[in-house]
Amino acid sequence: MDRIGPTFFEEENRVKNLVVRAISGAVLVALVVLSILLSSCYCFGVLFFAVMMLSLVEFYKMAEKIEGVSVDKWMGLAGGAVLYAAAFFVSFLGKSVTLFSVYALYVSVLMAFELFRGKQSPIQNLSATLLGHLYVSVPFVLFCLVEGATEQSKYLLLAFFVIIWASDTGAYLVGRFFGRHKMFERISPKKTWEGFAGGLIFAMVSGYIFHRLAVVDTLELAFWLALSAGVFVFGVLGDLVESMFKRSVGVKDSGNLIPGHGGFLDRFDSALLAAPVLYLLFSWVVYL
Amino acid sequence: MDRIGPTFFEEENRVKNLVVRAISGAVLVALVVLSILLSSCYCFGVLFFAVMMLSLVEFYKMAEKIEGVSVDKWMGLAGGAVLYAAAFFVSFLGKSVTLFSVYALYVSVLMAFELFRGKQSPIQNLSATLLGHLYVSVPFVLFCLVEGATEQSKYLLLAFFVIIWASDTGAYLVGRFFGRHKMFERISPKKTWEGFAGGLIFAMVSGYIFHRLAVVDTLELAFWLALSAGVFVFGVLGDLVESMFKRSVGVKDSGNLIPGHGGFLDRFDSALLAAPVLYLLFSWVVYL
Repeated sequence: MDRIGPTFFEEENRVKNLVVRAISGAVLVALVVLSILLSSCYCFGVLFFAVMMLSLVEFYKMAEKIEGVSVDKWMGLAGGAVLYAAAFFVSFLGKSVTLFSVYALYVSVLMAFELFRGKQSPIQNLSATLLGHLYVSVPFVLFCLVEGATEQSKYLLLAFFVIIWASDTGAYLVGRFFGRHKMFERISPKKTWEGFAGGLIFAMVSGYIFHRLAVVDTLELAFWLALSAGVFVFGVLGDLVESMFKRSVGVKDSGNLIPGHGGFLDRFDSALLAAPVLYLLFSWVVYL
Repeated sequence: MDRIGPTFFEEENRVKNLVVRAISGAVLVALVVLSILLSSCYCFGVLFFAVMMLSLVEFYKMAEKIEGVSVDKWMGLAGGAVLYAAAFFVSFLGKSVTLFSVYALYVSVLMAFELFRGKQSPIQNLSATLLGHLYVSVPFVLFCLVEGATEQSKYLLLAFFVIIWASDTGAYLVGRFFGRHKMFERISPKKTWEGFAGGLIFAMVSGYIFHRLAVVDTLELAFWLALSAGVFVFGVLGDLVESMFKRSVGVKDSGNLIPGHGGFLDRFDSALLAAPVLYLLFSWVVYL
């Protein structure tokens, strides 16, 4: 078959992919926004728990690609569930924060279980299992703690995700049209410093708008700008870290559960590393 | 040189080793007991911090023996210090428990740093670094939280260590004279079920004595027996887990800083896995 340019079928496929991508992206955004705003046990609690567990599954699949590493996946998922459940009880049901220490007992039990697995590389197996919790589950714990903390704190969590989405879009658009100077070619060849600047501007503008709208009425402009800048920078780092992980084990996407977008980890990578910035700024204002 | 039986020099050496072992063991016990009882920032805080950091160094040295793993040791130690400092501020200076979330930001920063190290196996490097915190630092965080919690809680921490030492001695003596049935030959060839029973009895008797002495006046006999049994069982598992780690990387002792006893990790291995049992039983009584 002679081929001159893309065929009709290829072009049709490209458009179809774009449509699928747009629809599934919009559905995910709508689900996240709705569950944050409804903020009930049955929406937020269940949806964020599901996303956390699916991301954890994806992470463990990546870790298992490392030579000699064998993760006890069910025990690993149980640990993520213990952490998330503690956060849920503390945040929504007002239980004592000492509940988190159940996770410390879980770690002891996990280590004891490894004794009976008789695998070659216990240190690596345990550490990959636990990295999943610190990388994936702890950020969702922090989301849960922010969501349930005060009357208005759910708007802050929503703002956090909007800042990430807006800056992603800004970085993509500016990078696409003005991108010249590569940022971190070894790990993410498409990222440019121009895109970074575009993302930062979109993030700061979002923060400014949230301030003008008085989304959370007690928060000052300085808070919103610090939040936007911090979340943006750690969001970019989160994106790079996930790319580094994927490259090191030789996969392109963390999963294929979101049509056109890859896996959940691919969608939430920025949010994972940025979560502590949100939580610390939030608790600085609320608790200190 | 003809050799018939141990020479005078060998015999002298054996006795000398026993004396060194006894002295350095007694010094360590005395330091731990005194710093728990004095319970000031300058005794407990500094000594337990030092032991935690030295154990962490030993753990990282073990992890580095794994092919392809390269731990960022200074960043790893910084993470242990962040966790311990948070515990210290919460426990002794009454600061908000949200201070622990600084550790979540530390994890994000650690991951970002790994981007710039350009190593082959980022997942393994990060996970070994963080395993050090969950395995070594978190137990010391729990000790610190118990020590500073109430007027009498330091006696509970002291009882915890006495239960471990007493059951160690009981297991050794009974195992040495009556040991027949191997417990876990693959990992620790000298342990026997007879020794296990001896350790359990010594642990329970210690718990009973603490109850009779009314070391903490509000605690009932059931609490003390549950604590003794739980600490003993997780202590044995902790001993086995450390042996598993050492075997998997082919070392005999985790270090050589305590004359005649090996490293700090070798001395505190039981306490590490048993710490959550102490903390959970304690917080059940105090907070719930």
